[in-house]
Amino acid sequence: MNALFFARSAAIIALALAVGSFATAQAQPVQQRNRVVIQVSDGDAAKWNLALNNARNLQTDLGPSNVQIEIVAYGPGIGMLKLDSPVADRIATAKDAGVAILACENTMKGQKLAREDMLGGIGYAAAGVVEIMQKQQEGWTYLRP
Amino acid sequence: MNALFFARSAAIIALALAVGSFATAQAQPVQQRNRVVIQVSDGDAAKWNLALNNARNLQTDLGPSNVQIEIVAYGPGIGMLKLDSPVADRIATAKDAGVAILACENTMKGQKLAREDMLGGIGYAAAGVVEIMQKQQEGWTYLRP
Amino acid sequence: MNALFFARSAAIIALALAVGSFATAQAQPVQQRNRVVIQVSDGDAAKWNLALNNARNLQTDLGPSNVQIEIVAYGPGIGMLKLDSPVADRIATAKDAGVAILACENTMKGQKLAREDMLGGIGYAAAGVVEIMQKQQEGWTYLRP
Repeated sequence: MNALFFARSAAIIALALAVGSFATAQAQPVQQRNRVVIQVSDGDAAKWNLALNNARNLQTDLGPSNVQIEIVAYGPGIGMLKLDSPVADRIATAKDAGVAILACENTMKGQKLAREDMLGGIGYAAAGVVEIMQKQQEGWTYLRP
Repeated sequence: MNALFFARSAAIIALALAVGSFATAQAQPVQQRNRVVIQVSDGDAAKWNLALNNARNLQTDLGPSNVQIEIVAYGPGIGMLKLDSPVADRIATAKDAGVAILACENTMKGQKLAREDMLGGIGYAAAGVVEIMQKQQEGWTYLRP
Repeated sequence: MNALFFARSAAIIALALAVGSFATAQAQPVQQRNRVVIQVSDGDAAKWNLALNNARNLQTDLGPSNVQIEIVAYGPGIGMLKLDSPVADRIATAKDAGVAILACENTMKGQKLAREDMLGGIGYAAAGVVEIMQKQQEGWTYLRP
């Protein structure tokens, strides 16, 4: 009776573990929502427009609710997010469409830029490159126009 | 006898699940074939040559049968695949060597380019950025020369 | 008695497999050390400085011991590592700070450069693009300034 009790207990524990483990293993290939981090590090308005085109095309082709997009501007790319940015209107449109827009505070410090010098409503990352690295580590796709 | 029957059934089910789950978990680290998606988004013939050098070097160093390469041209990079492309000969050579070459149809629409305006034998992606995103999601390496 | 023996044996095997499989599945989400491969493929000293800024900012923000960085220069980017490089001093500083710096030997062959033409103490990769591909395959983050 003791042996039978052991067999039953072991079987129940094994069953629980196997089911849990099976569920974990099966969960991994599940397709996650599309997530794309777009880097802007060139001091070139044509590149800023290209990055914004890329974001718009991702939303148009996949459907805005099927893709999460974050644009990170750093280095010479920071000009894209300054008050006098030639693409200020498009930044506002992208924000309204749900695109996250982040400025690198390391770059801002280096260029003596304060938040008052930047477009309203954008977000900030302490270090743009760390933000881009972490997004990739979390499984986001990297796009460098 | 009923308890024994339960123990035996549970143990068999647990065994089946555990084996299945174990096999799934073990299968994941298996090394896949090398696959590289190369982005061309600059309107710069030097970059087009560099991208083609990259493809050729990957094939030379790894062996052509050990690496799958896809070049995706979009935005200002679309000129690489137009009929008057300065690298038309090299595109033909790359295609013959098994490199897939795709033009972005979103970009073509924007620049009013038809397939007759493009080099023969290339492929097309509805949206270059979506193609690049999906290739990365499938585990391809991203290269942006 | 035979049935009981079977139930007990099956349960023990299932338990062992389930525990092993469970441990494997649990081990996968473990956060690896931050590792970043930085590509330099532009013949532009401003880009070389930006790449070096990126490496420094990664170390400053994460702590030097928490991030492993490798810079790979190829194509027109090879000038960053030549004896007459305008950023020679910064390369030395980066090396001292633990950043690995690799020159592409394919590019060197193409430009008839020998190791005597390059900065001291750097490393070499037979093919820069293969190195960058393999680092990504091993889970390194790709950064293309």
